[in-house]
Amino acid sequence: MKILVIGASGTLGRAVCAALEPRHTLLRAGRQGADLQVDLRDADRIEAMYEAIGPLDAVVVTAGKVHFGPLAQIDAAQWAIGLQDKLMGQVQLVQRGLARLRDGGSFTLTSGLLNDEPIRQGASAAMVNGALEGFVRAAALELPRGLRINLVSPTLLTESREAYAAFFPGTLTMDAAQVAQGYVRSVEGGDTGRVYRMGWSRER
Amino acid sequence: MKILVIGASGTLGRAVCAALEPRHTLLRAGRQGADLQVDLRDADRIEAMYEAIGPLDAVVVTAGKVHFGPLAQIDAAQWAIGLQDKLMGQVQLVQRGLARLRDGGSFTLTSGLLNDEPIRQGASAAMVNGALEGFVRAAALELPRGLRINLVSPTLLTESREAYAAFFPGTLTMDAAQVAQGYVRSVEGGDTGRVYRMGWSRER
Ligand SMILES: NC(=O)c1ccc[n+]([C@@H]2O[C@H](COP(=O)([O-])OP(=O)(O)OC[C@H]3O[C@@H](n4cnc5c(N)ncnc54)[C@H](OP(=O)(O)O)[C@@H]3O)[C@@H](O)[C@H]2O)c1
Ligand SMILES: NC(=O)c1ccc[n+]([C@@H]2O[C@H](COP(=O)([O-])OP(=O)(O)OC[C@H]3O[C@@H](n4cnc5c(N)ncnc54)[C@H](OP(=O)(O)O)[C@@H]3O)[C@@H](O)[C@H]2O)c1
Repeated sequence: MKILVIGASGTLGRAVCAALEPRHTLLRAGRQGADLQVDLRDADRIEAMYEAIGPLDAVVVTAGKVHFGPLAQIDAAQWAIGLQDKLMGQVQLVQRGLARLRDGGSFTLTSGLLNDEPIRQGASAAMVNGALEGFVRAAALELPRGLRINLVSPTLLTESREAYAAFFPGTLTMDAAQVAQGYVRSVEGGDTGRVYRMGWSRER
Repeated sequence: MKILVIGASGTLGRAVCAALEPRHTLLRAGRQGADLQVDLRDADRIEAMYEAIGPLDAVVVTAGKVHFGPLAQIDAAQWAIGLQDKLMGQVQLVQRGLARLRDGGSFTLTSGLLNDEPIRQGASAAMVNGALEGFVRAAALELPRGLRINLVSPTLLTESREAYAAFFPGTLTMDAAQVAQGYVRSVEGGDTGRVYRMGWSRER
Protein backbone atom coordinates (compact mmCIF):
# COMPACT_ATOMS: atom_id res chain seq x y z
CA MET A 1 0.00 0.00 0.00
CA LYS A 2 0.95 3.64 -0.47
CA ILE A 3 0.63 5.23 2.97
CA LEU A 4 0.93 8.88 4.01
CA VAL A 5 2.23 9.29 7.60
CA ILE A 6 1.87 12.77 9.07
CA GLY A 7 4.12 13.23 12.10
CA ALA A 8 6.50 10.55 10.87
CA SER A 9 9.55 12.04 12.61
CA GLY A 10 8.04 12.01 16.11
CA THR A 11 8.43 9.58 18.99
CA LEU A 12 5.29 7.71 18.02
CA GLY A 13 5.59 8.35 14.29
CA ARG A 14 9.01 6.71 14.02
CA ALA A 15 7.70 3.52 15.64
CA VAL A 16 4.61 3.49 13.42
CA CYS A 17 6.76 3.93 10.32
CA ALA A 18 9.06 1.11 11.45
CA ALA A 19 6.06 -1.21 11.85
CA LEU A 20 4.55 -0.39 8.44
CA GLU A 21 7.72 0.04 6.37
CA PRO A 22 8.51 -3.64 5.64
CA ARG A 23 5.25 -4.17 3.75
CA HIS A 24 4.34 -0.74 2.38
CA THR A 25 5.51 2.39 0.58
CA LEU A 26 5.56 5.27 3.07
CA LEU A 27 5.34 8.98 2.40
CA ARG A 28 6.60 10.81 5.49
CA ALA A 29 5.15 14.26 6.27
CA GLY A 30 5.66 16.90 8.93
CA ARG A 31 6.32 20.57 9.26
CA GLN A 32 10.07 20.19 8.73
CA GLY A 33 12.66 17.79 7.40
CA ALA A 34 10.27 15.10 6.14
CA ASP A 35 9.66 13.96 2.55
CA LEU A 36 6.62 16.25 2.47
CA GLN A 37 6.19 19.55 4.31
CA VAL A 38 2.72 20.18 5.66
CA ASP A 39 1.16 21.96 8.62
CA LEU A 40 -2.01 20.34 9.96
CA ARG A 41 -3.42 23.79 10.73
CA ASP A 42 -3.25 24.92 7.11
CA ALA A 43 -6.05 23.47 4.97
CA ASP A 44 -4.61 24.86 1.76
CA ARG A 45 -1.29 23.14 2.40
CA ILE A 46 -3.12 19.88 3.13
CA GLU A 47 -4.97 20.21 -0.16
CA ALA A 48 -1.73 20.96 -2.03
CA MET A 49 -0.01 17.97 -0.42
CA TYR A 50 -2.78 15.58 -1.46
CA GLU A 51 -2.71 17.04 -4.98
CA ALA A 52 1.05 16.49 -5.22
CA ILE A 53 0.91 12.89 -3.95
CA GLY A 54 -1.92 11.45 -6.00
CA PRO A 55 -4.03 8.43 -4.99
CA LEU A 56 -3.30 6.81 -1.61
CA ASP A 57 -4.30 3.66 0.25
CA ALA A 58 -4.00 4.99 3.78
CA VAL A 59 -3.50 8.17 5.78
CA VAL A 60 -1.98 7.83 9.26
CA VAL A 61 -1.61 10.77 11.63
CA THR A 62 0.81 10.68 14.56
CA ALA A 63 0.91 14.46 15.10
CA GLY A 64 -1.24 16.87 17.06
CA LYS A 65 -0.49 19.56 19.62
CA VAL A 66 -2.50 20.59 22.70
CA HIS A 67 -1.83 23.04 25.52
CA PHE A 68 -1.31 21.76 29.06
CA GLY A 69 -2.02 24.06 32.00
CA PRO A 70 -4.19 24.58 35.08
CA LEU A 71 -7.90 24.66 34.23
CA ALA A 72 -8.45 28.10 35.72
CA GLN A 73 -5.67 29.59 33.61
CA ILE A 74 -6.19 28.19 30.11
CA ASP A 75 -7.09 31.17 27.91
CA ALA A 76 -8.91 31.33 24.59
CA ALA A 77 -5.72 31.19 22.52
CA GLN A 78 -4.51 28.15 24.47
CA TRP A 79 -7.79 26.25 24.04
CA ALA A 80 -7.53 27.09 20.33
CA ILE A 81 -4.17 25.32 20.01
CA GLY A 82 -5.69 21.91 20.64
CA LEU A 83 -8.86 22.65 18.69
CA GLN A 84 -7.00 23.89 15.62
CA ASP A 85 -3.96 21.61 15.58
CA LYS A 86 -4.76 18.17 17.01
CA LEU A 87 -8.54 18.25 16.47
CA MET A 88 -9.41 20.21 13.34
CA GLY A 89 -6.03 19.42 11.75
CA GLN A 90 -6.88 15.72 11.78
CA VAL A 91 -10.49 16.42 10.75
CA GLN A 92 -9.27 18.47 7.77
CA LEU A 93 -6.98 15.64 6.72
CA VAL A 94 -9.98 13.34 6.66
CA GLN A 95 -12.36 15.71 4.90
CA ARG A 96 -9.84 16.71 2.23
CA GLY A 97 -8.64 13.13 1.93
CA LEU A 98 -12.05 11.63 1.20
CA ALA A 99 -11.60 12.01 -2.53
CA ARG A 100 -7.91 11.05 -2.43
CA LEU A 101 -8.08 7.56 -0.94
CA ARG A 102 -8.52 4.53 -3.16
CA ASP A 103 -11.57 2.28 -2.53
CA GLY A 104 -11.25 0.51 0.82
CA GLY A 105 -8.55 2.91 2.00
CA SER A 106 -8.25 4.00 5.62
CA PHE A 107 -7.67 6.96 7.90
CA THR A 108 -6.00 6.31 11.26
CA LEU A 109 -5.99 9.22 13.71
CA THR A 110 -4.34 9.67 17.11
CA SER A 111 -5.86 10.76 20.41
CA GLY A 112 -4.47 9.65 23.82
CA LEU A 113 -5.47 8.36 27.24
CA LEU A 114 -6.46 11.66 28.84
CA ASN A 115 -10.20 11.54 28.23
CA ASP A 116 -10.32 8.08 29.83
CA GLU A 117 -7.71 8.69 32.50
CA PRO A 118 -7.69 12.45 33.11
CA ILE A 119 -4.85 14.25 34.84
CA ARG A 120 -4.54 17.70 36.37
CA GLN A 121 -3.65 20.31 33.73
CA GLY A 122 -5.01 18.00 31.04
CA ALA A 123 -8.46 19.54 30.40
CA SER A 124 -7.62 20.65 26.87
CA ALA A 125 -6.08 17.30 25.95
CA ALA A 126 -9.06 15.42 27.41
CA MET A 127 -11.43 17.65 25.44
CA VAL A 128 -9.60 17.14 22.16
CA ASN A 129 -9.23 13.38 22.64
CA GLY A 130 -12.93 13.03 23.46
CA ALA A 131 -13.79 15.13 20.42
CA LEU A 132 -11.68 12.88 18.17
CA GLU A 133 -13.41 9.82 19.57
CA GLY A 134 -16.86 11.23 18.83
CA PHE A 135 -15.76 12.38 15.39
CA VAL A 136 -14.27 9.04 14.34
CA ARG A 137 -17.29 7.05 15.47
CA ALA A 138 -19.64 9.34 13.55
CA ALA A 139 -17.46 9.81 10.47
CA ALA A 140 -17.30 6.03 9.99
CA LEU A 141 -21.02 6.06 9.14
CA GLU A 142 -20.53 8.42 6.22
CA LEU A 143 -17.40 7.23 4.44
CA PRO A 144 -17.99 6.29 0.78
CA ARG A 145 -16.49 3.43 -1.28
CA GLY A 146 -15.59 1.17 1.64
CA LEU A 147 -13.26 3.77 3.16
CA ARG A 148 -12.52 3.18 6.83
CA ILE A 149 -11.55 5.33 9.81
CA ASN A 150 -10.18 4.38 13.23
CA LEU A 151 -8.58 6.10 16.20
CA VAL A 152 -5.56 5.00 18.22
CA SER A 153 -5.60 6.18 21.83
CA PRO A 154 -2.13 5.47 23.25
CA THR A 155 -1.27 5.48 26.91
CA LEU A 156 1.90 7.38 27.90
CA LEU A 157 4.75 6.00 25.80
CA THR A 158 7.68 4.41 27.61
CA GLU A 159 9.88 6.64 25.47
CA SER A 160 8.11 9.76 26.80
CA ARG A 161 8.02 8.74 30.46
CA GLU A 162 11.06 10.72 31.50
CA ALA A 163 9.74 13.93 29.98
CA TYR A 164 6.17 13.69 31.31
CA ALA A 165 6.14 11.35 34.34
CA ALA A 166 5.43 14.17 36.82
CA PHE A 167 2.10 14.87 35.11
CA PHE A 168 1.07 11.18 34.98
CA PRO A 169 1.07 9.68 38.48
CA GLY A 170 0.48 5.94 38.46
CA THR A 171 0.24 5.63 34.71
CA LEU A 172 1.49 2.41 33.13
CA THR A 173 3.42 3.10 29.95
CA MET A 174 3.68 1.09 26.74
CA ASP A 175 6.55 0.92 24.26
CA ALA A 176 5.93 2.89 21.07
CA ALA A 177 6.64 -0.28 19.09
CA GLN A 178 3.67 -1.98 20.77
CA VAL A 179 1.37 1.04 20.37
CA ALA A 180 2.32 0.98 16.68
CA GLN A 181 0.42 -2.30 16.33
CA GLY A 182 -2.82 -0.33 16.72
CA TYR A 183 -1.96 1.53 13.53
CA VAL A 184 -1.04 -1.72 11.77
CA ARG A 185 -4.39 -3.25 12.71
CA SER A 186 -6.27 -0.18 11.50
CA VAL A 187 -4.43 0.02 8.16
CA GLU A 188 -4.19 -3.67 7.29
CA GLY A 189 -7.34 -4.99 8.99
CA GLY A 190 -10.99 -4.42 8.16
CA ASP A 191 -12.11 -2.35 11.17
CA THR A 192 -13.91 0.95 10.94
CA GLY A 193 -15.24 3.35 13.58
CA ARG A 194 -13.03 1.68 16.20
CA VAL A 195 -11.10 3.26 19.06
CA TYR A 196 -8.01 1.23 19.97
CA ARG A 197 -7.10 1.94 23.59
CA MET A 198 -3.43 0.98 23.52
CA GLY A 199 -2.31 0.38 27.08
CA TRP A 200 -4.83 0.11 29.86
CA SER A 201 -7.80 1.86 31.29
CA ARG A 202 -9.66 1.43 34.52
CA GLU A 203 -12.84 2.97 33.12
CA ARG A 204 -13.98 0.97 30.12
CA MET B 1 -30.12 26.76 46.48
CA LYS B 2 -29.70 29.64 44.06
CA ILE B 3 -29.38 28.08 40.61
CA LEU B 4 -28.59 29.69 37.26
CA VAL B 5 -30.18 27.84 34.32
CA ILE B 6 -28.88 28.81 30.87
CA GLY B 7 -31.26 27.71 28.13
CA ALA B 8 -34.21 27.74 30.53
CA SER B 9 -36.78 28.45 27.83
CA GLY B 10 -35.90 25.43 25.67
CA THR B 11 -37.54 22.01 25.35
CA LEU B 12 -35.10 20.47 27.81
CA GLY B 13 -34.61 23.62 29.89
CA ARG B 14 -38.30 23.96 30.71
CA ALA B 15 -38.40 20.41 32.07
CA VAL B 16 -35.22 20.92 34.08
CA CYS B 17 -36.61 24.12 35.58
CA ALA B 18 -39.85 22.36 36.46
CA ALA B 19 -37.93 19.63 38.29
CA LEU B 20 -35.73 22.05 40.25
CA GLU B 21 -38.22 24.85 40.91
CA PRO B 22 -40.11 23.37 43.91
CA ARG B 23 -36.97 23.29 46.08
CA HIS B 24 -34.75 26.07 44.71
CA THR B 25 -34.52 29.67 43.54
CA LEU B 26 -33.97 29.70 39.80
CA LEU B 27 -32.41 32.40 37.64
CA ARG B 28 -33.39 31.77 34.03
CA ALA B 29 -31.00 32.85 31.27
CA GLY B 30 -30.97 32.75 27.47
CA ARG B 31 -30.41 34.99 24.52
CA GLN B 32 -33.96 36.38 24.61
CA GLY B 33 -36.96 36.69 26.85
CA ALA B 34 -35.46 35.16 29.99
CA ASP B 35 -34.73 36.82 33.37
CA LEU B 36 -31.15 37.27 32.24
CA GLN B 37 -29.89 37.84 28.70
CA VAL B 38 -26.64 36.11 27.84
CA ASP B 39 -25.05 34.57 24.77
CA LEU B 40 -22.85 31.54 25.46
CA ARG B 41 -20.50 32.62 22.68
CA ASP B 42 -19.73 35.95 24.34
CA ALA B 43 -17.30 35.63 27.26
CA ASP B 44 -17.70 39.28 28.27
CA ARG B 45 -21.46 38.87 28.56
CA ILE B 46 -20.96 35.72 30.64
CA GLU B 47 -18.63 37.64 32.94
CA ALA B 48 -21.12 40.53 33.23
CA MET B 49 -23.97 38.12 33.99
CA TYR B 50 -22.04 36.45 36.81
CA GLU B 51 -21.09 39.87 38.17
CA ALA B 52 -24.72 40.97 38.19
CA ILE B 53 -26.00 37.82 39.89
CA GLY B 54 -23.54 37.42 42.74
CA PRO B 55 -22.76 34.12 44.50
CA LEU B 56 -24.51 30.98 43.22
CA ASP B 57 -24.92 27.37 44.32
CA ALA B 58 -25.28 25.78 40.92
CA VAL B 59 -24.96 26.51 37.22
CA VAL B 60 -27.00 24.34 34.84
CA VAL B 61 -26.72 24.59 31.05
CA THR B 62 -29.42 23.26 28.74
CA ALA B 63 -28.32 25.25 25.68
CA GLY B 64 -25.80 24.63 22.94
CA LYS B 65 -25.97 24.70 19.17
CA VAL B 66 -24.21 22.47 16.62
CA HIS B 67 -24.43 22.18 12.84
CA PHE B 68 -25.87 19.04 11.23
CA GLY B 69 -24.87 18.13 7.69
CA PRO B 70 -23.13 15.54 5.50
CA LEU B 71 -19.53 14.93 6.58
CA ALA B 72 -18.07 15.82 3.21
CA GLN B 73 -19.83 19.19 3.18
CA ILE B 74 -19.31 20.62 6.67
CA ASP B 75 -17.13 23.70 6.19
CA ALA B 76 -14.89 25.56 8.63
CA ALA B 77 -17.60 28.03 9.68
CA GLN B 78 -20.03 25.17 10.32
CA TRP B 79 -17.56 23.19 12.46
CA ALA B 80 -16.97 26.44 14.36
CA ILE B 81 -20.65 26.72 15.34
CA GLY B 82 -20.48 23.65 17.56
CA LEU B 83 -16.99 24.42 18.83
CA GLN B 84 -17.85 28.01 19.79
CA ASP B 85 -21.43 27.66 20.98
CA LYS B 86 -22.07 24.26 22.58
CA LEU B 87 -18.45 23.40 23.45
CA MET B 88 -16.52 26.54 24.34
CA GLY B 89 -19.68 28.33 25.51
CA GLN B 90 -20.14 25.74 28.22
CA VAL B 91 -16.41 25.68 28.98
CA GLN B 92 -16.41 29.47 29.38
CA LEU B 93 -19.35 29.25 31.77
CA VAL B 94 -17.31 26.86 33.90
CA GLN B 95 -14.04 28.77 33.79
CA ARG B 96 -15.65 32.14 34.52
CA GLY B 97 -17.94 30.55 37.10
CA LEU B 98 -15.15 28.99 39.17
CA ALA B 99 -14.89 32.02 41.41
CA ARG B 100 -18.66 32.62 41.47
CA LEU B 101 -19.91 29.35 42.95
CA ARG B 102 -20.20 28.88 46.68
CA ASP B 103 -18.22 26.03 48.31
CA GLY B 104 -19.62 22.66 47.21
CA GLY B 105 -21.47 24.22 44.29
CA SER B 106 -21.93 22.44 41.00
CA PHE B 107 -21.81 22.82 37.24
CA THR B 108 -24.07 20.61 35.14
CA LEU B 109 -23.47 20.67 31.39
CA THR B 110 -25.35 19.08 28.49
CA SER B 111 -24.07 16.89 25.66
CA GLY B 112 -26.22 14.26 23.91
CA LEU B 113 -26.25 10.68 22.61
CA LEU B 114 -24.45 11.24 19.32
CA ASN B 115 -20.92 10.34 20.37
CA ASP B 116 -22.22 7.03 21.75
CA GLU B 117 -24.82 6.38 19.08
CA PRO B 118 -23.66 8.28 16.00
CA ILE B 119 -25.96 9.11 13.11
CA ARG B 120 -25.31 10.26 9.55
CA GLN B 121 -24.87 14.06 9.39
CA GLY B 122 -23.99 14.08 13.08
CA ALA B 123 -20.17 14.31 12.95
CA SER B 124 -20.03 17.80 14.46
CA ALA B 125 -22.47 16.90 17.24
CA ALA B 126 -20.55 13.70 18.01
CA MET B 127 -17.31 15.67 18.13
CA VAL B 128 -18.69 18.31 20.48
CA ASN B 129 -20.37 15.78 22.77
CA GLY B 130 -17.17 13.73 23.01
CA ALA B 131 -15.21 16.89 23.74
CA LEU B 132 -17.60 17.82 26.56
CA GLU B 133 -17.24 14.35 28.03
CA GLY B 134 -13.44 14.58 28.07
CA PHE B 135 -13.57 18.10 29.43
CA VAL B 136 -15.93 17.30 32.31
CA ARG B 137 -13.95 14.24 33.39
CA ALA B 138 -10.71 16.21 33.44
CA ALA B 139 -12.11 19.44 34.91
CA ALA B 140 -13.48 17.51 37.90
CA LEU B 141 -9.89 16.87 39.01
CA GLU B 142 -9.10 20.57 39.28
CA LEU B 143 -12.15 22.16 40.87
CA PRO B 144 -11.39 23.96 44.13
CA ARG B 145 -13.45 24.16 47.37
CA GLY B 146 -15.50 21.01 46.82
CA LEU B 147 -17.00 22.33 43.60
CA ARG B 148 -18.42 19.61 41.37
CA ILE B 149 -19.04 19.15 37.66
CA ASN B 150 -21.15 16.60 35.78
CA LEU B 151 -22.48 16.10 32.28
CA VAL B 152 -25.95 15.00 31.22
CA SER B 153 -26.06 13.15 27.89
CA PRO B 154 -29.73 12.88 26.92
CA THR B 155 -31.08 10.56 24.27
CA LEU B 156 -33.52 12.10 21.77
CA LEU B 157 -36.34 13.70 23.76
CA THR B 158 -39.85 12.43 23.22
CA GLU B 159 -40.83 16.08 22.78
CA SER B 160 -38.32 16.45 19.91
CA ARG B 161 -39.14 13.19 18.14
CA GLU B 162 -41.44 14.69 15.56
CA ALA B 163 -38.92 17.31 14.52
CA TYR B 164 -35.88 15.01 14.30
CA ALA B 165 -37.10 11.41 13.87
CA ALA B 166 -35.85 11.13 10.29
CA PHE B 167 -32.27 11.66 11.46
CA PHE B 168 -32.53 9.13 14.30
CA PRO B 169 -33.56 5.71 12.97
CA GLY B 170 -34.28 3.23 15.75
CA THR B 171 -33.59 5.62 18.58
CA LEU B 172 -35.61 5.19 21.75
CA THR B 173 -36.68 8.52 23.18
CA MET B 174 -37.14 9.64 26.77
CA ASP B 175 -39.50 12.28 28.15
CA ALA B 176 -37.76 15.56 29.06
CA ALA B 177 -39.20 15.25 32.57
CA GLN B 178 -37.26 12.00 33.06
CA VAL B 179 -34.06 13.37 31.54
CA ALA B 180 -34.41 16.28 33.97
CA GLN B 181 -33.71 13.87 36.82
CA GLY B 182 -30.08 13.71 35.64
CA TYR B 183 -29.78 17.42 36.37
CA VAL B 184 -31.47 16.97 39.75
CA ARG B 185 -29.02 14.23 40.69
CA SER B 186 -26.06 16.33 39.63
CA VAL B 187 -27.20 19.46 41.49
CA GLU B 188 -28.54 17.89 44.69
CA GLY B 189 -26.32 14.80 44.91
CA GLY B 190 -22.60 14.48 45.61
CA ASP B 191 -21.31 13.25 42.26
CA THR B 192 -18.49 14.84 40.33
CA GLY B 193 -16.84 14.00 37.02
CA ARG B 194 -19.83 11.85 36.07
CA VAL B 195 -21.52 11.45 32.70
CA TYR B 196 -25.20 10.59 33.05
CA ARG B 197 -26.35 8.78 29.91
CA MET B 198 -30.08 9.45 30.11
CA GLY B 199 -31.84 6.94 27.94
CA TRP B 200 -30.04 3.93 26.60
CA SER B 201 -26.90 2.99 24.82
CA ARG B 202 -25.79 -0.19 23.18
CA GLU B 203 -22.11 0.68 23.52
CA ARG B 204 -21.31 1.09 27.20
N1 LIG C 1 4.25 10.65 23.52
C1 LIG C 1 3.27 10.11 24.26
O1 LIG C 1 3.50 9.53 25.34
C2 LIG C 1 1.87 10.14 23.77
C3 LIG C 1 0.85 9.50 24.49
C4 LIG C 1 -0.46 9.57 24.06
C5 LIG C 1 -0.76 10.29 22.90
N2 LIG C 1 0.23 10.91 22.21
C6 LIG C 1 -0.13 11.66 21.00
O2 LIG C 1 0.58 11.17 19.89
C7 LIG C 1 0.86 12.22 18.99
C8 LIG C 1 2.37 12.26 18.71
O3 LIG C 1 3.06 12.38 19.94
P1 LIG C 1 4.66 12.33 19.97
O4 LIG C 1 5.04 12.27 21.41
O5 LIG C 1 5.17 11.31 19.02
O6 LIG C 1 5.01 13.80 19.41
P2 LIG C 1 6.39 14.36 18.85
O7 LIG C 1 7.52 13.43 19.19
O8 LIG C 1 6.47 15.78 19.25
O9 LIG C 1 6.17 14.27 17.27
C9 LIG C 1 5.21 15.06 16.63
C10 LIG C 1 5.32 14.81 15.12
O10 LIG C 1 4.30 15.57 14.46
C11 LIG C 1 4.89 16.56 13.60
N3 LIG C 1 4.06 17.76 13.75
C12 LIG C 1 3.95 18.56 14.85
N4 LIG C 1 3.09 19.55 14.63
C13 LIG C 1 2.64 19.41 13.36
C14 LIG C 1 1.74 20.14 12.54
N5 LIG C 1 1.09 21.24 12.99
N6 LIG C 1 1.53 19.70 11.27
C15 LIG C 1 2.16 18.61 10.80
N7 LIG C 1 3.03 17.87 11.54
C16 LIG C 1 3.26 18.27 12.80
C17 LIG C 1 6.31 16.69 14.08
O11 LIG C 1 7.22 17.03 13.06
P3 LIG C 1 7.57 18.59 12.78
O12 LIG C 1 7.97 19.19 14.10
O13 LIG C 1 8.62 18.56 11.73
O14 LIG C 1 6.27 19.16 12.28
C18 LIG C 1 6.62 15.26 14.53
O15 LIG C 1 6.89 14.44 13.40
C19 LIG C 1 0.32 13.50 19.63
O16 LIG C 1 -0.99 13.72 19.17
C20 LIG C 1 0.25 13.12 21.11
O17 LIG C 1 -0.72 13.85 21.82
C21 LIG C 1 1.53 10.86 22.61
N1 LIG D 1 -33.93 18.05 22.13
C1 LIG D 1 -33.34 16.87 22.15
O1 LIG D 1 -33.90 15.81 21.77
C2 LIG D 1 -31.92 16.77 22.66
C3 LIG D 1 -31.34 15.50 22.78
C4 LIG D 1 -30.02 15.41 23.23
C5 LIG D 1 -29.33 16.58 23.55
N2 LIG D 1 -29.95 17.78 23.43
C6 LIG D 1 -29.17 18.97 23.77
O2 LIG D 1 -29.84 19.70 24.78
C7 LIG D 1 -29.61 21.10 24.61
C8 LIG D 1 -30.94 21.82 24.56
O3 LIG D 1 -31.73 21.26 23.52
P1 LIG D 1 -33.24 21.74 23.29
O4 LIG D 1 -33.84 20.81 22.30
O5 LIG D 1 -33.90 21.96 24.60
O6 LIG D 1 -32.98 23.16 22.56
P2 LIG D 1 -34.01 24.39 22.38
O7 LIG D 1 -35.41 23.96 22.62
O8 LIG D 1 -33.67 25.00 21.07
O9 LIG D 1 -33.59 25.38 23.57
C9 LIG D 1 -32.34 26.00 23.58
C10 LIG D 1 -32.29 26.96 24.76
O10 LIG D 1 -30.99 27.54 24.84
C11 LIG D 1 -31.08 28.96 24.66
N3 LIG D 1 -29.92 29.33 23.81
C12 LIG D 1 -29.71 28.98 22.52
N4 LIG D 1 -28.53 29.46 22.08
C13 LIG D 1 -27.99 30.13 23.13
C14 LIG D 1 -26.77 30.85 23.31
N5 LIG D 1 -25.86 31.00 22.32
N6 LIG D 1 -26.54 31.43 24.51
C15 LIG D 1 -27.44 31.30 25.53
N7 LIG D 1 -28.58 30.62 25.41
C16 LIG D 1 -28.86 30.04 24.22
C17 LIG D 1 -32.44 29.20 24.01
O11 LIG D 1 -33.01 30.43 24.33
P3 LIG D 1 -32.75 31.71 23.37
O12 LIG D 1 -33.12 31.28 21.97
O13 LIG D 1 -33.59 32.79 23.96
O14 LIG D 1 -31.29 31.98 23.50
C18 LIG D 1 -33.26 28.10 24.66
O15 LIG D 1 -33.62 28.48 25.98
C19 LIG D 1 -28.77 21.23 23.34
O16 LIG D 1 -27.40 21.27 23.70
C20 LIG D 1 -29.05 19.95 22.61
O17 LIG D 1 -28.00 19.54 21.75
C21 LIG D 1 -31.22 17.91 23.00
